[in-house]
Amino acid sequence: MTLVLGGARSGKSAQAEGLARATGRKRRYIATAQPFDAEMTARIARHKADRGPDWHLVEAPLDLCMALGQAASDEVVLLDCATLWLTNHLLAGHDLVAETARLKAALAECPASVIVVSNEVGWSIVPDNALARAFSDAQGRLNQMLAAQANRVVLVVAGLAIALK
Amino acid sequence: MTLVLGGARSGKSAQAEGLARATGRKRRYIATAQPFDAEMTARIARHKADRGPDWHLVEAPLDLCMALGQAASDEVVLLDCATLWLTNHLLAGHDLVAETARLKAALAECPASVIVVSNEVGWSIVPDNALARAFSDAQGRLNQMLAAQANRVVLVVAGLAIALK
Amino acid sequence: MTLVLGGARSGKSAQAEGLARATGRKRRYIATAQPFDAEMTARIARHKADRGPDWHLVEAPLDLCMALGQAASDEVVLLDCATLWLTNHLLAGHDLVAETARLKAALAECPASVIVVSNEVGWSIVPDNALARAFSDAQGRLNQMLAAQANRVVLVVAGLAIALK
Repeated sequence: MTLVLGGARSGKSAQAEGLARATGRKRRYIATAQPFDAEMTARIARHKADRGPDWHLVEAPLDLCMALGQAASDEVVLLDCATLWLTNHLLAGHDLVAETARLKAALAECPASVIVVSNEVGWSIVPDNALARAFSDAQGRLNQMLAAQANRVVLVVAGLAIALK
Repeated sequence: MTLVLGGARSGKSAQAEGLARATGRKRRYIATAQPFDAEMTARIARHKADRGPDWHLVEAPLDLCMALGQAASDEVVLLDCATLWLTNHLLAGHDLVAETARLKAALAECPASVIVVSNEVGWSIVPDNALARAFSDAQGRLNQMLAAQANRVVLVVAGLAIALK
Repeated sequence: MTLVLGGARSGKSAQAEGLARATGRKRRYIATAQPFDAEMTARIARHKADRGPDWHLVEAPLDLCMALGQAASDEVVLLDCATLWLTNHLLAGHDLVAETARLKAALAECPASVIVVSNEVGWSIVPDNALARAFSDAQGRLNQMLAAQANRVVLVVAGLAIALK
């Protein structure tokens, strides 16, 4: 498993897509974004245009276990991104610790090569509101779990990758 | 072109000034800060004192194309910083994508050696307000453009530089 | 002196604890957290449980000079963390520049091996409120001071360390 970390608009997705193409495998894209407003709809459309065709698209805003379970061993799966998935569970009122544990198990069992994109969100003044703090903590724990499980971790800054593992 | 990235108060400016001095060239400083309040006025004065004399100062809060066009081929230009320049255009209601494209062209044509300082701003919880999100996106795209154009990119953390390119 | 930097929930404390154990010295833990609400109390308890026994605990939310002065030359001191200490002084209305200078002197005089944990907080959109901006500036200057004084600096991302010095 490969983990691609970075800040917002750092070039994480493009980096991850390049890694997926480089495998030469059939490509499966697990999208976690939900088009709940015009800004998000535009963002999803832009990402899709950037990515180009030749991807089997699966939408999985919440249930990554099922989506990962459908992937075949000769495929590369691009999961973009863990941060939106975690946000969706937060907004649904789910237990983020339990969901993180379920994702860990699903990744361990997935037969395909998997590339996960995730955001770094804790490099700022601690947020005022408790929900944002809880999310920041959950995202930090999720990234630590993903990094521990991955055999390759890269941090993307301004489109450039730093190898962390 | 050299790009110096980093968070707020990370030592980016001092790092960039050191790189400028190390060239041994005549030094031109393009300042983008505007003293619109007491805090900013103090910050500008402190930066100027830190920098010392022996810099040809040009103030260019908005029009970097003209400022870069005035530089000579035997000079090193320190542009500090791209983030305040982008903020000035945001506050002026300008199109940030178009301004980023104009800056790209001006940098490509500038005969001097150029060092650009810019902030990383997207390593946090996504901001509540739409303007901050739009700025964060524009800054991320600007940093990716600058990094792609640069032949050297450093990330500064607590005064220490990580070579990215 | 060793400085361990990172964002919130990045695995900084676990990294620093590992470095402390690796010295084989007697371990002293200087805690700067104050249990002023339920969330903080839970966080302190969780950190303590993660850390395990075999630490001599000293609580020093404000006076690090006295706490560092008590350490012996055969000990390793884990100071966790400089960010909460700075926050405590901010909330107490103290001069953060003066406190940073006092900490610098205390670290220089401390006979023990010291590991300091501190947060990166400036990688985001500039905060709206002046207090948060002042804190971000003070934290940035503090981290630059600590990094200059340290003979080893690591940046922790998702539990993985990048050597900066």
